[in-house]
Amino acid sequence: MRDVVEAEWGGRLIRGWNEGWLDMPAAISRGIEEIIGVSPGGVAVCDSTSVNLYKLAFAAIEAKRPRRKIVTEVGNFPSDLYVLQGLSRVWPDIEIVPTPGDPAEALDEDTALLCLSHVDYRTGRLRDVARLNEAAHRVGALTLWDLSHSVGACPVAAEANGIDLAVGCGYKHLNGGPGAPAFLYVAHALQDQLVSPLQGWFGQNDPFAFGPDYQPTQGIGRFMAGTPPILALAALEAGVSISAQVGIEAIRIRSLEQTDGFIDWFDRVGTHHGLRLDSPRDPAERGAHILFGHPEAWRINLALIEAGIIGDFRAPDGLRLGPAPLYTTDEEIEHALRTLEGILKSEDWRRFDGARTRVT
Amino acid sequence: MRDVVEAEWGGRLIRGWNEGWLDMPAAISRGIEEIIGVSPGGVAVCDSTSVNLYKLAFAAIEAKRPRRKIVTEVGNFPSDLYVLQGLSRVWPDIEIVPTPGDPAEALDEDTALLCLSHVDYRTGRLRDVARLNEAAHRVGALTLWDLSHSVGACPVAAEANGIDLAVGCGYKHLNGGPGAPAFLYVAHALQDQLVSPLQGWFGQNDPFAFGPDYQPTQGIGRFMAGTPPILALAALEAGVSISAQVGIEAIRIRSLEQTDGFIDWFDRVGTHHGLRLDSPRDPAERGAHILFGHPEAWRINLALIEAGIIGDFRAPDGLRLGPAPLYTTDEEIEHALRTLEGILKSEDWRRFDGARTRVT
Repeated sequence: MRDVVEAEWGGRLIRGWNEGWLDMPAAISRGIEEIIGVSPGGVAVCDSTSVNLYKLAFAAIEAKRPRRKIVTEVGNFPSDLYVLQGLSRVWPDIEIVPTPGDPAEALDEDTALLCLSHVDYRTGRLRDVARLNEAAHRVGALTLWDLSHSVGACPVAAEANGIDLAVGCGYKHLNGGPGAPAFLYVAHALQDQLVSPLQGWFGQNDPFAFGPDYQPTQGIGRFMAGTPPILALAALEAGVSISAQVGIEAIRIRSLEQTDGFIDWFDRVGTHHGLRLDSPRDPAERGAHILFGHPEAWRINLALIEAGIIGDFRAPDGLRLGPAPLYTTDEEIEHALRTLEGILKSEDWRRFDGARTRVT
Repeated sequence: MRDVVEAEWGGRLIRGWNEGWLDMPAAISRGIEEIIGVSPGGVAVCDSTSVNLYKLAFAAIEAKRPRRKIVTEVGNFPSDLYVLQGLSRVWPDIEIVPTPGDPAEALDEDTALLCLSHVDYRTGRLRDVARLNEAAHRVGALTLWDLSHSVGACPVAAEANGIDLAVGCGYKHLNGGPGAPAFLYVAHALQDQLVSPLQGWFGQNDPFAFGPDYQPTQGIGRFMAGTPPILALAALEAGVSISAQVGIEAIRIRSLEQTDGFIDWFDRVGTHHGLRLDSPRDPAERGAHILFGHPEAWRINLALIEAGIIGDFRAPDGLRLGPAPLYTTDEEIEHALRTLEGILKSEDWRRFDGARTRVT
């Protein structure tokens, strides 16, 4: 990061573009491709998760018209639902179907797209990607997965599991820093059939020829839009390369050890102090974080933060604890759970009021 | 920049969001508002210029339907043309009208939007914003300006000149670093009539309530989409605050001194060595960079770069020189022009071949 700011930007000015900057997104993409199990040229690093979801959902529906339905889930990450809702401004007859149960049951011949989160942002439930993709493909629909809460913590095996399209953020388990650039994946067989609605010059064939008409480049690059954010990419590159080197299988083993520990603690301690376990017990259905329910979750979270334990409140009454498989130690987890036990026993959370700040 | 990476991200983790990060885009916006002459709450810092152009052009056309025409200019920045072309995938009857001459002549009652660059990316021609806005408003069209090549170098006076909508990049005269976040401006009177097509959670009213339906927030924040890129914003904040402190009027005086110097040199020297002046002589029509035409502009630019003078080749035969009003010294400009004179006299550019790299 320091090298990029001081030597490359400070010393080389725009020459940096031909001395590695233009290739930086592709270098990070190769790391993410390894982590999510896709062959080279499947991933582009660009924009935010919301913007990437818009690009891919738009392109997928356009390709599947006149189909009208987007099947999703009630508990999908709200920003994903908002983005999908926006597509009705492009195709007024589009119907968003948020299913409370098994999304496969809502699929039919009028479904253009199945759009789900791989890991639920609240409960941490891990979806059966292969089964759902198969169900979608059986009716001729495409699938679009949000990997934000799984990438870098749970294997995705995107190609083996038949994922058509995916997006994900760089700032959770990829450790890319606050608001890091996001990524998108498009299966190789689909890349030349889909076109991003955001027809920016970095998706253009030979952009520096400055031709007058948009002609999307071949391959995954066509899903890029504006100029890559070099300083932010430098931070993301560091995070991605560590995860790629450690390997997603090893990370997953460590992650399950961690969440097993939370569940053991819940059975021994938490359940006796009014907590509810809202995450799956079955490792095959469990992501990398744990949600505990409690009517006073908001204030309990404030008490934890004061003690230096950084969790998230998740409405209406959830306390989400997300150990980092790469660097959270057993001692840190034990300390966090002992602290939580102390807060529950002493009801120390009563010192905090219920007025909510913005980011939780 | 170093503080943000080491102390805030390294030390505070997600707590940083409530300790200043969430307000960082708004703080930078205030600087840009001063620089482009708009009252508080007019500017949002987010995404790339191409993505922001899409958001505002989409929202403007949606508001002006069933009008069909987007009037633009043949020489507009190509990425802007590509983005506009993409809107025909939303409204198939949309017609993009790229005018070679005065765009005002193409305006009519079927025009939804006039979309132009304030300063031409090649010639540096500065548009008469007030006159063109007035012409557009006379037929009931909205105006959308790309300020990428003027912001931080030329006064925009966006409100005084009646600009409805604008976008611009952070990495030219705002000195925000390679691929810095971009910005957008929406006139206060229009903010609640327009909705971004990219319905992401950072444009949502009360995003951390995680409600199921998109409800755009009041004011300029509704044009944001994904999570703000904190590390990149930290770099942009430094650049913007310097420009805001110096003041755009003082910057403009210095910029005109610089480009006057280039034109004087052209009349004394350049014109005798096969150069053509492709930028306006009239200061009222001149931006902050100068374009010289020459059949061997590509190779001349390579010879300049080897000598440490960083210009841009612009197809088909242009050499663009863009002094930075804030920090390029008279000595540096004299040195650059003496070097250029030497290259032209000696025809030293013959040592370079014509094969073109990507960024120019």
